[in-house]
Parts: sequence; structure tokens; C-alpha cells
Amino acid sequence: MIGIFDSGIGGLTVVRELLQRAPEASFVYLGDTARTPYGNKSPETVIRYALEDAEFLISKGATSIVIACNSASAVASEELKKKYPNIPVFEVITPAAQDALVVTKGRIGVIGTRATINSKAYEHNLKPETRNPKPEIFARSCPLFVPLVEEGWLERSETKRIVRYYLSSLKQQNIDTLILGCTHYPLLRPLVQRFIGNKVKIIDSASSVVSRILQTEGLIKSGDQLYYLTDVSKHSEEVAQKWLGHSIVFKQALLS
Amino acid sequence: MIGIFDSGIGGLTVVRELLQRAPEASFVYLGDTARTPYGNKSPETVIRYALEDAEFLISKGATSIVIACNSASAVASEELKKKYPNIPVFEVITPAAQDALVVTKGRIGVIGTRATINSKAYEHNLKPETRNPKPEIFARSCPLFVPLVEEGWLERSETKRIVRYYLSSLKQQNIDTLILGCTHYPLLRPLVQRFIGNKVKIIDSASSVVSRILQTEGLIKSGDQLYYLTDVSKHSEEVAQKWLGHSIVFKQALLS
Repeated sequence: MIGIFDSGIGGLTVVRELLQRAPEASFVYLGDTARTPYGNKSPETVIRYALEDAEFLISKGATSIVIACNSASAVASEELKKKYPNIPVFEVITPAAQDALVVTKGRIGVIGTRATINSKAYEHNLKPETRNPKPEIFARSCPLFVPLVEEGWLERSETKRIVRYYLSSLKQQNIDTLILGCTHYPLLRPLVQRFIGNKVKIIDSASSVVSRILQTEGLIKSGDQLYYLTDVSKHSEEVAQKWLGHSIVFKQALLS
Repeated sequence: MIGIFDSGIGGLTVVRELLQRAPEASFVYLGDTARTPYGNKSPETVIRYALEDAEFLISKGATSIVIACNSASAVASEELKKKYPNIPVFEVITPAAQDALVVTKGRIGVIGTRATINSKAYEHNLKPETRNPKPEIFARSCPLFVPLVEEGWLERSETKRIVRYYLSSLKQQNIDTLILGCTHYPLLRPLVQRFIGNKVKIIDSASSVVSRILQTEGLIKSGDQLYYLTDVSKHSEEVAQKWLGHSIVFKQALLS
């Protein structure tokens, strides 16, 4: 059983991608909605939360861990791999960076939360020793995208203006590839693509990590699909239904 | 020593008001930045957090509790009063409602987080048995105001448009009084006043609760002023400095 965690419901974009490509896959999902968001919290706090999240998933039978949250991937993946050396731990940053390096002509934009961008985790992964010339990286934190997505403001004029505000500098830099470095951002993809232009290739970290999971032998087994949240609310259920296209029963998870 | 807690740094608007009117007042502040925001979480979770916050303040020597957070005031003040029957517990909703009832001609608007508005705590306090005719109440949740304030977008055109979006229905209802039912909202007061019109009286729950504290004998003593956060970050320190006009040293609080 695959264990997937996220700071909240954003990681359901990874679940959506997984279900599209492996509808029977057995997994247990944990959204830490009681402490969401992670993206504007310090590395120390995010590491502590990520370790607790993984422990919960393992207690529910997970035999692999997917860190669906970019912020947690950026600051906590080393700690998780160290703590669980015997199970596969996937994070979302390396796969997205690899996919971007395949398609880019040399100018890559990265957007994410403040925690993800400040960590410089993408820069680190996008400048491999073996590649010359190294691509140029333009990173931009977009802290208001998560609340806009959680409000369901996916096409509103206010959202369009905020997209323009955050992405103008990347557009001026003539990026050819843009990494959506946050699980919430795929829901803004139509607006982002329209603003940044059709020539810019968009890499979605949710899609990239699911490709890696599917390429790993023996991970996909058919079986239960379980959803847990640390704070179950009507709002979460409504948003989940909208994103996944069908209703979900969330169970309450109590950490610590 | 007065104990003041909030879901994050928003409660510093209460501290700011207190310091303006009693600069020497001794207090200990706790901002639960590791789990912020409370305003879109369920009552059960907010109650649990509020109890832990109060316990922390008491362990630091607080002899009274101020719930600076409207969301926690709305759902957790009864539980706190029950748990601590021997110390004064102030919440921000009753004082703001009382102040609104003094000035209104009968049409009161209330804005707040989803948790505060859904709780109907203001409606409950604004319709006292003894008053006839009862005022008409128009409530509106404004979930994006908190992230906008935390980003420091206090005067941007995007914020103006979102203010217009949220407050149009209240304006159409010809309210004469508007309660800012969230500690973050005083920072949007200039924009809100401009949109809603100068004739509308604005009641700020931070100011209302500080008036009640100052009216209570024996609460104000001069002494230490301590600031704790559950997640200390540079961003919090920057925002705090901007709001209070001077720099603050936050100490790390570890709950649970």
C-alpha cells in the first residue's frame, strides 16, 4: 500500500493523477488539514510534521511514502529517507526537475510556496554536475496561489491579476519551461498557461512523481483506497469532490 | 500578567491597541504560527488548540486570558471559561457586539473568517432579549483577507477588488455599522472604510476587547512583555515589526 501525505488537500492532485493512470492502485492518503499550510512555516516545523505524517501512514500499513507536498519535499525528504532507509520514499522535486531538464532549452521558471522557493531545492536539482551549459533558473514564490485555489477562485478576474503580478518577471525572462512547484498549482494551470504563453512547457510535479511511482516495480497493487485528514470539515469534502470529480469519505486522523 | 493568544501574529493588533493605551502593561503573547490559521478549521480542532494555548500562557505566569482570535473566541470561549473558572477569560466577540449595539441605528454588518461566521457567534450576541426592535444582521465571511494581510498587501489594487467583491452585498444592504470580526482586519480598515463609505461606523474587535481589559480592576500591572510563537520565522518578525512599528524578539513555544 502506497502512503501519500500532504499539508492538506492539495496532495489530492497527486491522487487524481495516480487514479487516472492506475485506477485500482491501493493507497492511504493523509492530509494534515489541522496544521495546513506548511508553505509559510519554518523548515524545523515542517520536518517535525513530515516525520509525524509518515509515521501515521506506516501505522496504517503503508510500505512506501510519497511526499506529495513540495514544501515538505524541499525541506524534509532527507530526514525521511534517513529515518526509513528500508522503504521507498518519493518526493516531488527531483522528478519535476528531471522532467524539466529533458524539455528545456535552457531557461526554466519555478514557482512555489515561500518555504519551497527559499529552500532552493529546485535550483539544487536543476543544476546537475553533468550538464553544460547549466540552465538558467528563475524562481518566484507565489504565496497567495494556495488560498486562491482553496477558495475555488480558479478563473476569477482577481486571480488572473494575481497570476499576472507573480509571473510577469518570469515572462520577461523568456523562460521556455515552467515548473509548478506546489500541489495546488495544477488547478491554476489554464490561467498560468494562458498568461505565460503556449510556447512555455509546463511541468507539473504531481504528474512527474506519479510517473516515477509507476516506473518502480511492485509498488502498484490493487486494494483499499483510504483517505485521512487531521481536520475533517465540510469545506474539505466539497473541495475534494470538485477536484476528484467524485465524493470521498475522509476519516479523522489524530497525530500526537 | 495578562495572557493573550491568537492563531498567529494577527493578535498583535490587540497588543498594539493595549500598548497604545497602557504602554507599561505586563503581558505574555502566544501566536500559534505552527498551526495557523484557525479560521478555516473545524470547531473541534480550534477548541483543542485554544485549550493548549491557554495552558501554555498559564504555565508562563498568566493570571488572565485574552482570546485575541475571533475564530477561537467564537467556538472555544465557553470551554475555556469552564476549564478556568477562577481566572478572567476575555473573548473578542461580546465586547465588539456590545459596542456595535451602542452605535447602530439597526443595520449591522459582520465580517470574519469562515469559522467565525459559520459559528453565528456575532448574531447570537447582537440580538439580546432586552432590545426591541432587534437589529438586522448581515454576515459575510472573507477568507482571503487573512492571507492578503499576511502578505502585506494592504493597499494593492488586487486587494481593493477583493474588498469590493466581499463587501458589495453589505453595502447594498445599507448597513450603518460594520464589525471587523477578525484580528487581521484592522489592517485593512482604510480600504474597507473607503469602500463601505464614511457614514458606516466601524467597530474593531481588538479595540473593544482592550477597553474591557482596561475597565477591569487590577489587571494592568507594569512588568515583562513576552512574545512567543509556535513557529518562529523571519517572515513573522518582519510582519510584526511592520505592524507594531518596532522590532520584537519572539521566543519559540513548543506545545504538546
